[in-house]
Amino acid sequence: MSGVADRVLARCDELAGLSSMADGICRVYLSEQHRVANELVAGWMRAAGLDVCFDAVGNVCGRLGNPALPTLIVGSHLDTIPDAGRYDGILGVLLGIELAERFRDEPLPFALEVIGFGEEEGVRFGTTLMTSRALAGTWDHQWFDLCDADGVSLHDAMERFGLNPAETASAARDTGGLLGFLEVHIEQGPVLEAEGLPLALVTSIAGARRFEARVQGMAGHAGTMPMAMRRDALAAASEIVLAIEAIAASSKDGLVATVGQIEALPGGVNVVPGAAVFSLDVRAGEDHVRDVAIDEIRARADAICERRNVLFDMQQTHIAGSAACDAGLLAHLAAGLEANGVVQHRMASGAGHDAMAMAELCPVAMLFVRCADGISHHPEESISPADVAVAFDVLCSSVRSCAESFKE
Amino acid sequence: MSGVADRVLARCDELAGLSSMADGICRVYLSEQHRVANELVAGWMRAAGLDVCFDAVGNVCGRLGNPALPTLIVGSHLDTIPDAGRYDGILGVLLGIELAERFRDEPLPFALEVIGFGEEEGVRFGTTLMTSRALAGTWDHQWFDLCDADGVSLHDAMERFGLNPAETASAARDTGGLLGFLEVHIEQGPVLEAEGLPLALVTSIAGARRFEARVQGMAGHAGTMPMAMRRDALAAASEIVLAIEAIAASSKDGLVATVGQIEALPGGVNVVPGAAVFSLDVRAGEDHVRDVAIDEIRARADAICERRNVLFDMQQTHIAGSAACDAGLLAHLAAGLEANGVVQHRMASGAGHDAMAMAELCPVAMLFVRCADGISHHPEESISPADVAVAFDVLCSSVRSCAESFKE
Repeated sequence: MSGVADRVLARCDELAGLSSMADGICRVYLSEQHRVANELVAGWMRAAGLDVCFDAVGNVCGRLGNPALPTLIVGSHLDTIPDAGRYDGILGVLLGIELAERFRDEPLPFALEVIGFGEEEGVRFGTTLMTSRALAGTWDHQWFDLCDADGVSLHDAMERFGLNPAETASAARDTGGLLGFLEVHIEQGPVLEAEGLPLALVTSIAGARRFEARVQGMAGHAGTMPMAMRRDALAAASEIVLAIEAIAASSKDGLVATVGQIEALPGGVNVVPGAAVFSLDVRAGEDHVRDVAIDEIRARADAICERRNVLFDMQQTHIAGSAACDAGLLAHLAAGLEANGVVQHRMASGAGHDAMAMAELCPVAMLFVRCADGISHHPEESISPADVAVAFDVLCSSVRSCAESFKE
Repeated sequence: MSGVADRVLARCDELAGLSSMADGICRVYLSEQHRVANELVAGWMRAAGLDVCFDAVGNVCGRLGNPALPTLIVGSHLDTIPDAGRYDGILGVLLGIELAERFRDEPLPFALEVIGFGEEEGVRFGTTLMTSRALAGTWDHQWFDLCDADGVSLHDAMERFGLNPAETASAARDTGGLLGFLEVHIEQGPVLEAEGLPLALVTSIAGARRFEARVQGMAGHAGTMPMAMRRDALAAASEIVLAIEAIAASSKDGLVATVGQIEALPGGVNVVPGAAVFSLDVRAGEDHVRDVAIDEIRARADAICERRNVLFDMQQTHIAGSAACDAGLLAHLAAGLEANGVVQHRMASGAGHDAMAMAELCPVAMLFVRCADGISHHPEESISPADVAVAFDVLCSSVRSCAESFKE
């Protein structure tokens, strides 16, 4: 069905034009571009035969089928980071619309709902997954006071968008009526390309823990402090960075650990560093794998610093639990892959997704689509029409598999 | 002679009061504090029986003995960094004055000149050792265009100080009439304290080479980039930092190598570093020792980066040759140590000193005085009266040893 893939890609291009940047894509939550994107997507939903509504937090929702039936939600997000690619999030919404249109005249034993979430990236107010959390009933009223770079609060931004902040609770869904949430998303990593596969089943969405680590040594003059008497904080930190890398690399469970920021203090070219601070981000599909690794990192860092006669401290700055995908939904996705002759590759998602928030509401599952060179969050983000086509076919087959299960 | 030590320390305290900072010591070249310090030191010189002059670059010079005789210069600098200690440089000037006073009525076969240099630290105009370079005849006329933080050029600052920039060449000395330059200075490091010794003979002043090193890897998403596929620039840089430390630590020649600055790029907590930049400062008493080490560092870094499939580049940003101290002058200092029962400890100076510039003019030698905890360039800089007293006695004995050599 290259017609479907072509239309999806053309719509991705059209949405890419709705940007606050002159030379790049940027579409943040509750912006004018968000409003126009919602209207555009709503039009495509209506054309696909969906009943459209806009919920209390700015999501666009299109429903196919009897509202009294249990509902399978399909979707992802419509917002972007600054200078974004054109497929991150959007692909999942547009494939959801195509899916619904495909089943427009093919009655299902459940309703289909397609959602374009308004806020996943956390760009404008610094908090991610806000609008999927609204559906999950985990919206935090303290968010209303969060301000964007221009000092506009979330509360005021909602009002300017035409939303009533007092009604956000109405966006929350009732667990009872939901079959689950399916999210198709580009992988945003290089694994599928390396494996030569178009798609992957996501078994879980990793929860990250982040830390700020600090090594306290003793500063000294680069010329007058003999090597043997140094308590060089950066040398100790360097040894810890390598220990972190080794611990993650030796894991068999898809663990990733990253030191993305580092600073030596006082930071003079001719001063032996008296302190070093660095960030640590650790993720795994299963929380206990991640937590065991963090304990090992801490123990190795303590040993390194004790040997070097410097002090080590590591403070947690962020924690999110991993979200396991539902075995039942995964089985339907697996059936969809099989029906289309696609090799089944299972992997954890290292990045966060709306499905992570939705997992607090209902069963979730995700399908990853291969992207070129693993590039995402960048204008060069790219996917192939063939991969979009097979993703669509697998999605259709998976929904049929789900429908079949109702007959049993 | 605790009287001499007490007076020297009291004068250090008095000079510490001449500061542009309210709560700390700061006295930069050609400042009002410099002028007042010069007058104060000139007064002490006159009281010690010296003929005083101010040279064309703002140094204060005091002479004892027949100007036709060969001259031994003793001295150091009077300027400070911001929030400085009170002994760095100053001690050597004040001990020179005491030395001259001691020989006021004890004729020597040579003249003694005490110099308080105006500029060693490089704080105001970013270039160090300017005023000793003026004596050595290596003043650079391009310096006139250097500006301080307020945009005042060196040229204008000299005029405001009452100096004529056109006359700087007159500060240069004639090599022929000089026996040498002796500089007493606090060690600014922890070696003498660790050795339990008050003094050291400085065999050479290390010349530093500095580099900016860059590792170019590939940025990636901290969650979606598997460990095995990463080209993490910071991990590579960390391995290089440890290689640098190991190469310097294994040197038997007093080599020191320091990475004082490091940055990971783009610098996101959730981004695998695509690049890492760091500084490198390498020093040794002998240039070939330093240069061999740098070649080894470069080779090790290249090997590390090749194995990790990242690129390495290292650009030199600074080079200074080491300055060897004169064997003849060192022999007189050694005789001075022996005459006072002080164990002879020889070491290279890792920090730069006026003697480094003066070495281009005449034989030089230095005597290091122990300082507490190796602390310097800090308000807590501290020396003991006993060490000052023994430094003075050794200086006197050394000058007598030098005088004896004239009789042979």
